Amino acid sequence: MDERFMDAAVTAAEEGMTRGDGGPFGAVIVRDGKILSRAWNRVIRDQDPTAHAEVNAIREACRVLGRFHLEACDLYTSCEPCPMCLGAIYWAGLRTVFYAATRDDATETGFSDARIYREISLPPEGRTVRFVKTDSSAATAVMRAWRSDANRQRY
Amino acid sequence: MDERFMDAAVTAAEEGMTRGDGGPFGAVIVRDGKILSRAWNRVIRDQDPTAHAEVNAIREACRVLGRFHLEACDLYTSCEPCPMCLGAIYWAGLRTVFYAATRDDATETGFSDARIYREISLPPEGRTVRFVKTDSSAATAVMRAWRSDANRQRY
Repeated sequence: MDERFMDAAVTAAEEGMTRGDGGPFGAVIVRDGKILSRAWNRVIRDQDPTAHAEVNAIREACRVLGRFHLEACDLYTSCEPCPMCLGAIYWAGLRTVFYAATRDDATETGFSDARIYREISLPPEGRTVRFVKTDSSAATAVMRAWRSDANRQRY
Repeated sequence: MDERFMDAAVTAAEEGMTRGDGGPFGAVIVRDGKILSRAWNRVIRDQDPTAHAEVNAIREACRVLGRFHLEACDLYTSCEPCPMCLGAIYWAGLRTVFYAATRDDATETGFSDARIYREISLPPEGRTVRFVKTDSSAATAVMRAWRSDANRQRY
């Protein structure tokens, strides 16, 4: 844990909020002691509900490195990642996540983080968003075709 | 549930896979019986670990509508959304999610969906990715500043 990087994440949060780009959240991604990407929440500016600080930082770091994997990289974020960002962290293969405020702080600030954490662990049919399972042999056939392709790129 | 839309999602999955853009996953977003957006996984093409079919479809539908909220819209996806996509679905405020294959089908196909579902419900300190809570009064101060701004745009 390097305080300079957490300071950079919090400063990004402040900058984004002051610009009116989105909520009070900032993040940086660090590799070998250097900042690879620095981002803040841009949900309002981009009119994009997925434009959270962590997702933006991951996308930018991948652009910088030219690959979709961030092994040996650490994320510093001003607030505990929401489930969407947590999923993105796993897909990106980040090593360590340092966070300051918590999902409860986010809830007090008016965001849905804690609620989404509760929803995600429910079985699909028990959620407030309606989830409907349907059968499609075509869908599983496409997945079988992928699995049987020896040249596929794994990720 | 309208089979034409699930067919469109599965066809998108097939098209993306055939192009080599990413894994065998496709999605469409529908409003008032019309397709607003159609997308497939582009993790490989974009070198972006967040470029899942559902995230891409949500971002594109928001671009089409010019807003970050997709109320009264439904998502059809060829496979049960991963936790990242599920979070995006909640932030976007989608109404219903129709899905065909499951997280277990995805696991059999070689993807980490089920593992990430397990990880997300663990307390941060119990996960395989290292999560480190740190104190930062500056981080909570930024969040307080947001909360006390009467003109803030809620989302």
